[in-house]
Amino acid sequence: TLRAEMEELYPADISGILYELDTETARYLLALLDRKVGAEILANLEVIDRQEFLQSFTSQDLAQYVDEMDSDDAVDLLNEQPIQTREEVIALLTDREQARFILDLLHYDEDVAGGLMQKELIKININLTVNQCIEEIRQQAENVENVYSVYVVDDTDKLLGRVSLKKIVLARKNAKIADIYEEDVIFVETYRPAQEVSEVMQRYDLDAIPVVNVQGRLLGQITIDDVVDVITEQAELDIQAITGITGDVEEEDDTIWKLVGARLPWLIAGAVGSLMAATVINTFNSQLSKIATLAAFIPIIGSTGGNVGIQTASLIVQSLAEKSGLSATVGQRLAKMVLVALINGLIIGSLAGSYCLLIGEPRLVPVVSLALLTVVLLASFMGTITPIALNRFGINPAIASGPFITTVNDLIGIGVYFLIATLLLSI
Amino acid sequence: TLRAEMEELYPADISGILYELDTETARYLLALLDRKVGAEILANLEVIDRQEFLQSFTSQDLAQYVDEMDSDDAVDLLNEQPIQTREEVIALLTDREQARFILDLLHYDEDVAGGLMQKELIKININLTVNQCIEEIRQQAENVENVYSVYVVDDTDKLLGRVSLKKIVLARKNAKIADIYEEDVIFVETYRPAQEVSEVMQRYDLDAIPVVNVQGRLLGQITIDDVVDVITEQAELDIQAITGITGDVEEEDDTIWKLVGARLPWLIAGAVGSLMAATVINTFNSQLSKIATLAAFIPIIGSTGGNVGIQTASLIVQSLAEKSGLSATVGQRLAKMVLVALINGLIIGSLAGSYCLLIGEPRLVPVVSLALLTVVLLASFMGTITPIALNRFGINPAIASGPFITTVNDLIGIGVYFLIATLLLSI
Ligand SMILES: [Mg+2]
Ligand SMILES: [Mg+2]
Ligand SMILES: [Mg+2]
Ligand SMILES: [Mg+2]
Ligand SMILES: [Mg+2]
Ligand SMILES: [Mg+2]
Ligand SMILES: [Mg+2]
Ligand SMILES: [Mg+2]
Ligand SMILES: [Mg+2]
Ligand SMILES: [Mg+2]
Ligand SMILES: [Mg+2]
Ligand SMILES: [Mg+2]
Ligand SMILES: [Mg+2]
Repeated sequence: TLRAEMEELYPADISGILYELDTETARYLLALLDRKVGAEILANLEVIDRQEFLQSFTSQDLAQYVDEMDSDDAVDLLNEQPIQTREEVIALLTDREQARFILDLLHYDEDVAGGLMQKELIKININLTVNQCIEEIRQQAENVENVYSVYVVDDTDKLLGRVSLKKIVLARKNAKIADIYEEDVIFVETYRPAQEVSEVMQRYDLDAIPVVNVQGRLLGQITIDDVVDVITEQAELDIQAITGITGDVEEEDDTIWKLVGARLPWLIAGAVGSLMAATVINTFNSQLSKIATLAAFIPIIGSTGGNVGIQTASLIVQSLAEKSGLSATVGQRLAKMVLVALINGLIIGSLAGSYCLLIGEPRLVPVVSLALLTVVLLASFMGTITPIALNRFGINPAIASGPFITTVNDLIGIGVYFLIATLLLSI
Repeated sequence: TLRAEMEELYPADISGILYELDTETARYLLALLDRKVGAEILANLEVIDRQEFLQSFTSQDLAQYVDEMDSDDAVDLLNEQPIQTREEVIALLTDREQARFILDLLHYDEDVAGGLMQKELIKININLTVNQCIEEIRQQAENVENVYSVYVVDDTDKLLGRVSLKKIVLARKNAKIADIYEEDVIFVETYRPAQEVSEVMQRYDLDAIPVVNVQGRLLGQITIDDVVDVITEQAELDIQAITGITGDVEEEDDTIWKLVGARLPWLIAGAVGSLMAATVINTFNSQLSKIATLAAFIPIIGSTGGNVGIQTASLIVQSLAEKSGLSATVGQRLAKMVLVALINGLIIGSLAGSYCLLIGEPRLVPVVSLALLTVVLLASFMGTITPIALNRFGINPAIASGPFITTVNDLIGIGVYFLIATLLLSI
C-alpha cells in the first residue's frame, strides 16, 4: 500500500515528494502517515511552500501536528501563521508543556539565539548520583530526539556545566554528578545574534550549545543542524546581494512575476546610474566629435572600475566576517589597498596604453593609462570604504560587492576619463 | 604562570593567539602545553599558517603531536608536508593503531567522503548484550572524543545499523543489541563527493555519518563539524569565483604580491575583453563622428548586459546546487528565462527610451530601446547556458556569475548596439 511504501521513507524525503504533488494529494498523503512523522515532514518544508500548503488546514489540524513538533520548529511554523490562527492553535494543544514552551519562545526575534533554540533538553540537578541521573534521563528523554549533552544545573536552574552521555554510560552508578561533570561549558545568552552563535559553534566544534538568560538560568539549547541552516541561508543571501537579486527567489520554483520583481530593482538602479553616465558623456560631446576614438575606451574604463571595486569589496567583506578581521584599522587597510591598486593599475594601464599604440593613436596613451590608473585607485578606495561603512550602519556589507559598486565606479570612472582627456589633449 | 593561564583557555582560542605571535614564541608556547592540547591547537590552524609554522619542526616533534590527533586531522596535516617528512613521521609514531589509521586514510582525495572521514568510532558486534556493549564502549571510547552513535556490525564488519547512546543508557543491561538497534542507518560510500556528503547530512540533520566501502564494510565516520567547514569553504570559494578572485587569499593576512596575483588574472581578462570591445567601437568610428551622442549609451548597454548576465547565472547556479534543481530541462529554463528577460528588457528599454526623448534625441529612441531589449535577451541566454555548460564539464559554475559573463556580454552588447544604430539610422 501507499502507506507502507511511505513508511519506508525518511520524513525529509517525503517532504521532497510533497513539493511535486498538488495540495489535495499532499494533504491526503500526510493524513495517511503517523502524526509524529507528519509533524517532522511539515517542519522540513520550505517556509513559502509550507505557508501555502497549510492555508487549507484548520487550527485543529495544525494543533495535532504542532503538538508533536520540536518547540523550535513549532514556533517557526506558528510565526508564519496569522495571529488569530496562532492563538487558536496554542489554545488547542493537548500537550500543555508544549504550549508553555511555545509561549516562551514566541517573543524572540528569529535572528538571535532565542529564536534558534528549542526548549527540549535534558537537565539534571548537581546533587544527583549517576543512577538518579539515568532515571531523570529516562523521564526527560521522551521529549528529546537527540541527546547531545546532559546539562547540570543548581536548584535555581542556573547552568553549572555539562556531562557527556559517554561519561554517564561509563561512570560508576553511585558516583556523584558533582564529581564527574565538566565545569567549563560554552553557552550563549538569548540575545546573542545568530551569526555569533554560528561562529562560536564552529570555533569549538559543538553539536549543541545551551542558551541562558542574563541571570545564567538555563532556558534551552541550539542544535547544530539548525545552525547549519543559518550558515547555508546566509551564504545564499550574500550571493544574492552580490549578484543584485533582491528577496529569496528561486529560478525554478517561483513565478515569472516574482523573478522579475527580484531582478528589477538593481537593473533599474544600474540603468539610472548608466543614464547619469550618459549625461556626463554628453557634456563632452564636442570633444567626442573631434576624437571619436575616445568612445572606444569607455568600456575598459567602466569594466575595470567595476571589476576592481567588486574584488576589493569582496575581500573586505570576507575579512569583516571573520572575527580576526576586526583587528586591522581602516587606515592600515587603505594603505595596503593603495599599494595593490597601484600595481594593478600600472599593469592594466600599460596594457591599454600598448593597445593605443597598436591602433596608431599614440596621443591617447597618456590619457587612457592615466585614467585607468586613477580609476583603479578610486575603485579600490570605494571598494574598501563602502562595505566598512555599510557594516557600521548594520547593513549587509555584501551588497557593496554587487551592482551598487559597479554603477558608482562606472560613473566616477567616466567623469575622470573625460576630464583627463580634455586636460591632456586640450580639446 | 603563562602555562596556567593558557590551560584556562580552549585550544581553539589558543590557535587564535598563535597567529599573533612570531614562530619562536609560538613554538615556546606550544611546548609548554599538554601534548594532547597542542595536537588540537595544530589541528585548528589554517592550512597556510600551519604549513609555515611547522617548517621548523623535526619529524620527531611532528610525530609526538600527530600521535595525539584525530586521524582525519592527522592526515590533513601530513598531506601538507613533503613526502619524506610524511613517511618519517608515520614511521616515528608510537601509537601503531594511529599509523595504520593514517595509512588507510592517506590515499583518499580530500574532496570525497574518504578524505573527510576519521577512523575513530565505536562499533559493536550485533551479538552482544547491552552490558557487553558498555564494556566495549569503555575500551574504544578513549580514542573517540564525541560519541555520536554506536555502530552495529556483523562478524565481517559489515555495517548493520546504529544504536544511540541514549538507548544504551536506558536499556536493560541484559537486553540484546540485536533487539534494540536501528536497522535503517544512513551511510555514504568512501568515493562520494564531499558536496554529496554535506547534502545528505543537511537533509537528514545528522551529527555524524558512517562511511563504508563498496562491500558495505564500516571504515570510518564523518562528523558534522568537518562538514560545516566544507560548507563554509565552498561558500567562500563561490563568492571568490563570482567576484573574480583566483585562489584563497585574505585581504588582511596575505602579502601584497599574493593579493595582486589573485586579482590580476580576471582584471587582465576583463581588460582584454574591453579592448576587443574598443576594436568593435572603432569600426563604427565614422558613425560616431556623425552622431557623437551614440557614445553616451555605451555604459548602459554594457552594465545592463553585465547585470542581467550575473543575475541569471547566479539563479541558475543556485538551482544547480539544489538536488531538486536537476528536474527542469534546459529547454524549460530557457523558456522561463526568455519571458522574464522580455519583461525586464521592455522596462529598461522604455526607461532609456524616455531618457532619449528627455535629452531631445527622439531618433535614438528606437535604437537604444531595441538594443537594450536585445542585450537583455542575449545576456539572459548567456547567463543560462554558461553555468549549465560549465557544470557539465565539471567546472565550478559560480565563475559564470563573475567577470567572465560581464566581459562577454559587454562585447556582444556593444556589437549589437552599433549594428542596430547603423541599420536604423542608415549611417
Ligand atoms: Mg526559530
Ligand atoms: Mg514535545
Ligand atoms: Mg570547526
Ligand atoms: Mg531544531
Ligand atoms: Mg529549523
Ligand atoms: Mg531541524
Ligand atoms: Mg532558498
Ligand atoms: Mg581530510
Ligand atoms: Mg588516536
Ligand atoms: Mg537540515
Ligand atoms: Mg574531525
Ligand atoms: Mg575539524
Ligand atoms: Mg579563508
